Amino acid sequence: MSSTDDVALVDHHCHGLLRTDPSPDEFRVLATESDRLTPDGTETLDSPFGLGIQRFCAPLLDLPRHAGVESYLDRRAELGRETVDRRLMAATGTGRLLIDSGSLMSPLLSPREMEDGLGIPADEIVRLEHVAETVARTATAASFADDVRAALQEADAAGAVGWKSIIAYRYGLDIRPDPPTATQVTEAAGRWLAGCEASGRYRLEDPVLLHFLIWAAIPFGKPIQFHAGYGDSDIELFRADPSRATRFFAATVDSGASFTLLHCYPFVREAAVLSQVFPHVYCDVGSVTHFLGPSAGTVVRQVMEIAPFSKVLYSSDAHAISEEYLVSALAWRRETGRLLDEWIADDWLTADHAERIAADIGAGNAVRLYRLQAASTGSR
Amino acid sequence: MSSTDDVALVDHHCHGLLRTDPSPDEFRVLATESDRLTPDGTETLDSPFGLGIQRFCAPLLDLPRHAGVESYLDRRAELGRETVDRRLMAATGTGRLLIDSGSLMSPLLSPREMEDGLGIPADEIVRLEHVAETVARTATAASFADDVRAALQEADAAGAVGWKSIIAYRYGLDIRPDPPTATQVTEAAGRWLAGCEASGRYRLEDPVLLHFLIWAAIPFGKPIQFHAGYGDSDIELFRADPSRATRFFAATVDSGASFTLLHCYPFVREAAVLSQVFPHVYCDVGSVTHFLGPSAGTVVRQVMEIAPFSKVLYSSDAHAISEEYLVSALAWRRETGRLLDEWIADDWLTADHAERIAADIGAGNAVRLYRLQAASTGSR
Amino acid sequence: MSSTDDVALVDHHCHGLLRTDPSPDEFRVLATESDRLTPDGTETLDSPFGLGIQRFCAPLLDLPRHAGVESYLDRRAELGRETVDRRLMAATGTGRLLIDSGSLMSPLLSPREMEDGLGIPADEIVRLEHVAETVARTATAASFADDVRAALQEADAAGAVGWKSIIAYRYGLDIRPDPPTATQVTEAAGRWLAGCEASGRYRLEDPVLLHFLIWAAIPFGKPIQFHAGYGDSDIELFRADPSRATRFFAATVDSGASFTLLHCYPFVREAAVLSQVFPHVYCDVGSVTHFLGPSAGTVVRQVMEIAPFSKVLYSSDAHAISEEYLVSALAWRRETGRLLDEWIADDWLTADHAERIAADIGAGNAVRLYRLQAASTGSR
Repeated sequence: MSSTDDVALVDHHCHGLLRTDPSPDEFRVLATESDRLTPDGTETLDSPFGLGIQRFCAPLLDLPRHAGVESYLDRRAELGRETVDRRLMAATGTGRLLIDSGSLMSPLLSPREMEDGLGIPADEIVRLEHVAETVARTATAASFADDVRAALQEADAAGAVGWKSIIAYRYGLDIRPDPPTATQVTEAAGRWLAGCEASGRYRLEDPVLLHFLIWAAIPFGKPIQFHAGYGDSDIELFRADPSRATRFFAATVDSGASFTLLHCYPFVREAAVLSQVFPHVYCDVGSVTHFLGPSAGTVVRQVMEIAPFSKVLYSSDAHAISEEYLVSALAWRRETGRLLDEWIADDWLTADHAERIAADIGAGNAVRLYRLQAASTGSR
Repeated sequence: MSSTDDVALVDHHCHGLLRTDPSPDEFRVLATESDRLTPDGTETLDSPFGLGIQRFCAPLLDLPRHAGVESYLDRRAELGRETVDRRLMAATGTGRLLIDSGSLMSPLLSPREMEDGLGIPADEIVRLEHVAETVARTATAASFADDVRAALQEADAAGAVGWKSIIAYRYGLDIRPDPPTATQVTEAAGRWLAGCEASGRYRLEDPVLLHFLIWAAIPFGKPIQFHAGYGDSDIELFRADPSRATRFFAATVDSGASFTLLHCYPFVREAAVLSQVFPHVYCDVGSVTHFLGPSAGTVVRQVMEIAPFSKVLYSSDAHAISEEYLVSALAWRRETGRLLDEWIADDWLTADHAERIAADIGAGNAVRLYRLQAASTGSR
Repeated sequence: MSSTDDVALVDHHCHGLLRTDPSPDEFRVLATESDRLTPDGTETLDSPFGLGIQRFCAPLLDLPRHAGVESYLDRRAELGRETVDRRLMAATGTGRLLIDSGSLMSPLLSPREMEDGLGIPADEIVRLEHVAETVARTATAASFADDVRAALQEADAAGAVGWKSIIAYRYGLDIRPDPPTATQVTEAAGRWLAGCEASGRYRLEDPVLLHFLIWAAIPFGKPIQFHAGYGDSDIELFRADPSRATRFFAATVDSGASFTLLHCYPFVREAAVLSQVFPHVYCDVGSVTHFLGPSAGTVVRQVMEIAPFSKVLYSSDAHAISEEYLVSALAWRRETGRLLDEWIADDWLTADHAERIAADIGAGNAVRLYRLQAASTGSR
């Protein structure tokens, strides 16, 4: 595991931490992709991720391993989120955070607050649907497309390092290979905006506009992140298979944009194949590095089956609670290190080569792809 | 493996045993999900499950391990099914059987006969399509819905502990999130009943009626089992992906009903995700615990990747031949035990906690979910 | 691994080798399923298959293991393709090659040239779409069906041992269970031929004609190979799931034809289930035996989970460069040997039985299925 210990991780997709201390049950629900507790008489944290919290986080809160869920939640409340977050985040060894700032859950820290509070350089990933839903409050059907482009221009100028699309949630990954026409966009915007005004609800689900957003982001030449596979109860997994976007990737191979497939569980192999077949497609296994707890090695191994080593990225997809950052980071280090150690032992590559692969996946590939400043690329 | 040895299993989904001794070729075909032998010149039992039979069952019939297929079938015939079934069933360590009584293959023992003959308490799971196909022989289009409801009422009063839907076979798991209307049901019943009378064939494939049955069962508040994934040659696997039912699960989260996803191969990860995301969804890996023979550990490990430990159930899905009960039970004990032992060795949890997880999956979760009598929950 | 060392492999699906030495970048691209290099600043061969080349091939070109990509490509050019191919092919231990002669990449050696140049007996697999695209240059709408049948008759008489369909690329594996009518074929041929003449491009994508080709091949009673799963950037993975063809397999179970599912990644489990459920369906994991490099064992293990041992075949799917033949052959031997050794150690079967299974999968099943001459079935 020496090969991964020294990497200062670039976490290319994560979210902000909570601004306030969660109640025990809020914490339990945040530690799943559900919006509910498990049935009466059961403990929601009796789960693989729950084991990860006990194993990796309890000792950092001065508890013995396996202290138990109640003791852990008591101690967390006693220390308070700032102390907990500072301890756990420091132990991740993260050198840089690329933060999706468009999460719908409001009381999360912004990229700037994360950087200031934790001392870890942080960049912003702008969520396309969030841009559209903001623009919608002032746009007309006729101005919508230009207003979106202007908002993206502004985010680009302000230093956003990439974009995020959640079309997987809102429509699925059957992304068409050609952009909608200006007329189609105007018509769709008219329909959607009228509905928003009538209902007071600005949630974008129109497929024309979801497609338009992606095509509006492409000319900036910055990476576009696609949620793929596993996520909260909104997602229909079979529609979130990234291979459904194959024709789209074929159509954009010379567009100058790159695409990163996030999470991907249980379509990790599909994502890795796409990252082999298309030079502008990358993949990661964020979120399942922590949600799988003791089994995180299975997804780390799947993504390493067929993807070129230059196309795999590290992310935690951590959200709200620092336990997700820590368990993901330690699981990635352990499991990638174990796999590379096995390969070295079986003479597939040299220790030097393994070290380079670990450094590329943990940081270097993201630095190159997102054109990050050299300052963030050092080792721990 | 100490953690699983003591659990008196609750087999929450299985079928009855044969009433008569099978011929050698009948046995071979029953030991697959095919309705044919493998090609001429090959041995159908030269398969993973065939290895499991030799390994676990041959010694219980006084044969050496690896006695060979012919010797095994000879010895089985010599002892006769009653002796074989008694020996193999006793070795499973099963404390309770929940038996789907609607299998189309007629000469299977009923739950009552299973309990009386084997001394293992048995409850009935009522197959919804079987109810409809029975009701169809006397119903009219106008009476169909009420007749079905009355039949379910009767089964409920008679002590059925749950329901089983095979909509995956007859239509696929694209289950709509809203119930059909009374008018739609009456119209569909009219069409179907007319076809039944004309053809003399009472096989329900109408999607409206298949949906109606599920919605008719929901108000009873008892668990509804869904066949998912692997099954006989009738199933189109890609249509049997349980994630296709996501919107249905979202729509029924407050209905009071629970749903159990059976088998799930090769969609075990999809099923486990659904059981994390929805509090009323459970999963198992029945049937592939025996059909995978030496590889059964792969599915046991998949289901433990992301599912909360309170949402995983044990079933054998055994059918007709007691070899399926035995190989499934021993494989589950071995492989769950090995996995938990690895987790203990790697300090993910304590031995006590592992024991509780094993007891919950092997029995406790089913006892809670199906509200079984305490009498059946003791250890072996 | 003793169980696999002695098997003279029958490679039931592969392609010809290059006729000319590739440039370094041509080699890099051939070592993927992409038609592009990875992004600037990265090495395309920094991949799992790249590790396999360094591990298994470098020593045979008199280099140390892990000599590095540049050194390997230099040495390959220095020795020249004939020497390289002779050395690597000899080390595969292949006893017979069944070569798909319809690859679109023109400068590949024919089956006859492969046999003459390498001294390995070679048979031809005729690609159905290639036949149609050749016939199209002279056929009329009215003559098309008969012209195709005549061309198949000729290929059959000339000793073709089987057929290959790439309907997965051109349409997907949603193969209908019934053949198109003569009228439908004539109409579709008329449309397609008119388009070919107008464009000068003879690429068959018409679903009616793609289906017709399969039904035209069935009466010959020889195996028909289906591309399934992973392939070049043309494939949409989710459409290449072999379970989509379930109704077709059910409809052809008594047709006298057999079907082999090639590659199958990441649908190996789906393919293995189909080969259990249908007596005339077989499966392999060709191409991913080399593209997965150190992880090839995962697919070897998946295909052995549920398939009867008589229904699994060996293929390399190697194409153009002899590194693919060699890495696939050695990976198959290592990983199948390891798995069987583990099963022996865990007492699932005897060493003799393991040896028979290895011989069946490596050669015997293909000899029986393709009715190959006994001459090719000896051990190495």
